[in-house]
Amino acid sequence: MPKASLSEKFSLIHDQWRPKVVAQLNGQELKLVKIAGVFPWHHHDDEDELFLVWRGQMRIEFRDHTVELQPGEFCVVPRGVEHRTMAGTEAEVLVFEPAATRNTGNIVDEKFTAPNGVVI
Amino acid sequence: MPKASLSEKFSLIHDQWRPKVVAQLNGQELKLVKIAGVFPWHHHDDEDELFLVWRGQMRIEFRDHTVELQPGEFCVVPRGVEHRTMAGTEAEVLVFEPAATRNTGNIVDEKFTAPNGVVI
Repeated sequence: MPKASLSEKFSLIHDQWRPKVVAQLNGQELKLVKIAGVFPWHHHDDEDELFLVWRGQMRIEFRDHTVELQPGEFCVVPRGVEHRTMAGTEAEVLVFEPAATRNTGNIVDEKFTAPNGVVI
Repeated sequence: MPKASLSEKFSLIHDQWRPKVVAQLNGQELKLVKIAGVFPWHHHDDEDELFLVWRGQMRIEFRDHTVELQPGEFCVVPRGVEHRTMAGTEAEVLVFEPAATRNTGNIVDEKFTAPNGVVI
């Protein structure tokens, strides 16, 4: 049962919008992702997603409102709810969701759809 | 989709070893708990548990080794593995595990077994 450090794991990430798996449990994964810019609108048919900001700031836009997250703040996006994420400058974010959740949900985007199951 | 703050949620917790649910998703729960002292040995037959330290320090003892966690460090305790948690002075800890996981797993302890599903 090795331990791990969020800061050390984030230091291994050199790309944006490419979630990395740092823990697997109960069919779920804890993923770390660095984000900057604006992600495409999408939803997940069958997965709820938890976003928790570690460093920086992010926004989650819904069709009718926006949530701004500072470090230590979190939000659950329920399945089926259209959303997009964004950050003005690079933010470090924890994502908790079922294993093999596609980051772009119901869409496939040449730039943003990331490989699944990349463990660091 | 309201957001929440770990610091604000922890400020609402005035007891130790009593996990509080702050997010529910995919049949799992994100719980916050304040701990100090030594928890009983136990295991969970069917649940993996992720511990992530937010403030303070904690230890997870296994029968053959010990893991020490500083803020921002995390560890997954797989199902079936006997363990106990402890902290010298009060620590604030995130726990991610299936909903309705009993904190004392396979044992019931008059002092430590906590009510489930307490949402803050």
